[in-house]
Amino acid sequence: MSPDARIAVDAMGGDEGLAVMLAGVARARRKFDGLRFFLVGDEARIRDGLATHPNLTAASEIVHAPDVVTSDEKPSQAIRRAKTTSMGVAIDLVKQGRAAAAVSSGNTGALMAMAKLSLRTMPGIDRPALAALLPSLGETDLVMLDLGANTECDARNLVQFAVMGAAYARTALDLESPRVALLNIGTEDMKGTDIIRDAAARLRDATHLPMTFSGYIEGDRISRGHVDVVVCDGFSGNIALKTAEGTARFVADLLKRAFRSSIRSKVGFLISKPATELLRGHLDPNNHNGAVFLGLNGLVVKSHGSASEVGVSHALSVAAKMVRDDLTRRIAQDLGNFEKQAA
Amino acid sequence: MSPDARIAVDAMGGDEGLAVMLAGVARARRKFDGLRFFLVGDEARIRDGLATHPNLTAASEIVHAPDVVTSDEKPSQAIRRAKTTSMGVAIDLVKQGRAAAAVSSGNTGALMAMAKLSLRTMPGIDRPALAALLPSLGETDLVMLDLGANTECDARNLVQFAVMGAAYARTALDLESPRVALLNIGTEDMKGTDIIRDAAARLRDATHLPMTFSGYIEGDRISRGHVDVVVCDGFSGNIALKTAEGTARFVADLLKRAFRSSIRSKVGFLISKPATELLRGHLDPNNHNGAVFLGLNGLVVKSHGSASEVGVSHALSVAAKMVRDDLTRRIAQDLGNFEKQAA
Repeated sequence: MSPDARIAVDAMGGDEGLAVMLAGVARARRKFDGLRFFLVGDEARIRDGLATHPNLTAASEIVHAPDVVTSDEKPSQAIRRAKTTSMGVAIDLVKQGRAAAAVSSGNTGALMAMAKLSLRTMPGIDRPALAALLPSLGETDLVMLDLGANTECDARNLVQFAVMGAAYARTALDLESPRVALLNIGTEDMKGTDIIRDAAARLRDATHLPMTFSGYIEGDRISRGHVDVVVCDGFSGNIALKTAEGTARFVADLLKRAFRSSIRSKVGFLISKPATELLRGHLDPNNHNGAVFLGLNGLVVKSHGSASEVGVSHALSVAAKMVRDDLTRRIAQDLGNFEKQAA
Repeated sequence: MSPDARIAVDAMGGDEGLAVMLAGVARARRKFDGLRFFLVGDEARIRDGLATHPNLTAASEIVHAPDVVTSDEKPSQAIRRAKTTSMGVAIDLVKQGRAAAAVSSGNTGALMAMAKLSLRTMPGIDRPALAALLPSLGETDLVMLDLGANTECDARNLVQFAVMGAAYARTALDLESPRVALLNIGTEDMKGTDIIRDAAARLRDATHLPMTFSGYIEGDRISRGHVDVVVCDGFSGNIALKTAEGTARFVADLLKRAFRSSIRSKVGFLISKPATELLRGHLDPNNHNGAVFLGLNGLVVKSHGSASEVGVSHALSVAAKMVRDDLTRRIAQDLGNFEKQAA
């Protein structure tokens, strides 16, 4: 990473408040030695908050922004206040080339709208998509997109998501030819909507791309390790992601109940605690926090609204790695090759 | 249950074959003393299979059907062979009033198409929906629909699913005024598609119904026990259901790995085995097998294609309980009240 690379942090966004954001930044700073930041938001409050994080002072520059985007604000309203909000100013620092990436735990729709308006989509991309790395039983994590940026999508959008997701997997997971699948309600050709079937036909024809199209994948196979990139519209993606989170928590709660059901099982639980702690760490959404908007001329990372200090730090790590790997340029390259060969 | 009530079983459908179907029927027979059956399919093969289930012989009548619907057959093709397939003949027994319900582990789309064509939808219902009881942290299970019968739905469909789902919950879960929510990607009013927002507006106005509309629910809250009926189109429902199944299995696999990670945790596992077995039972899809087509003039239960003997037996229990509770009449009554009061 260039020693000058800085990440712009929307210090005011998110449900957990400024203190958690700053604690997360400080934690990331301890992990990535060269990492430097723009902390965007209420200057006086950020200065106060920095008092407890001496390791951040030298590595950070405060950029004042008087306003905050609220979590229930409509994107169309929020973009009108882009220039005065911490979210908008953080994105603008990326646009100006002063920051290498922006990270926010704020309103997803507003972040998407502002990022799109300010950074614009890459040539050949109609809509950016929100992608995340999810745990899997395979050798690497998997990329899933779109996770909620685009409620409705056409076949062309899905194909572009596949190309961008594969490029992300090539970079983030270091895979030569990622296996890409479309999320569907069955694996037979006739299954799903016209849009999905149309996207599948186009991807089947796109044999010149540095990826392997694996057809359809059902919800119960996502994390089995058979594919590297799962592509869907933002509605299905959001439903699948949140259902997976909820189910993991549900199972953990049942397990807790089961362990408490008898003295014998309580003893067993205490003995096997290191193992269950390991599992808890593996499943904690904070350890997978940091979704990326793919398809923009600049890096923007969405941190979960309720991310903890660990979660914020993880989102910053995602941003730092993408900066290091020069993700935007690599996706642009893959897309360029796609366009050229398709032409 | 009337002593004459019989359930028509498609003995040939499903991936596990005739032997598993018959074993499942025999198991259900042991649980429900008065239960009697039509076993529909290849007469000679069924007769052979019955040899190992002496408890079934007196309780069953074999109805010959020479053909079988295959799992990859298009519904439009399958319905042309309705009269000769085990699936079609089982449904026809319901239509004729000879069977009180039909159960099949075969092709879902074909089952839906045949059931709809033969039994017709109830007055005021455009499309039947596939509903299942799912585990929850609340005091009862929850009803979720549609789980894959209707890939795309309009607002009117979703409202009808809500009314039918509530009626099912009133019967199956014994709830006075079930809490009904629409599955969405956020809880704020502006979230989701136009279709979902339209359905929400109609349900908000329907205060005369014996249910409580709770607004939107996100995927991670489905099983928290805050709502009794979750309504969605068949695409989202199938994605959510399968993702939940897959995640539960994923967590169980991780847990297994964690328990094997050290001698200490192996010991802990052995000690707490009764607790983890309890959990396994709670999460095994076979223990929740049996989805119901709601909105038809007759009861049809879909058993999972890969259901085990326990799973098949569970699907038959679902059918038996619905027959006992006279579900079709009760849903028709609720729907009738809805229409009257809406008029």
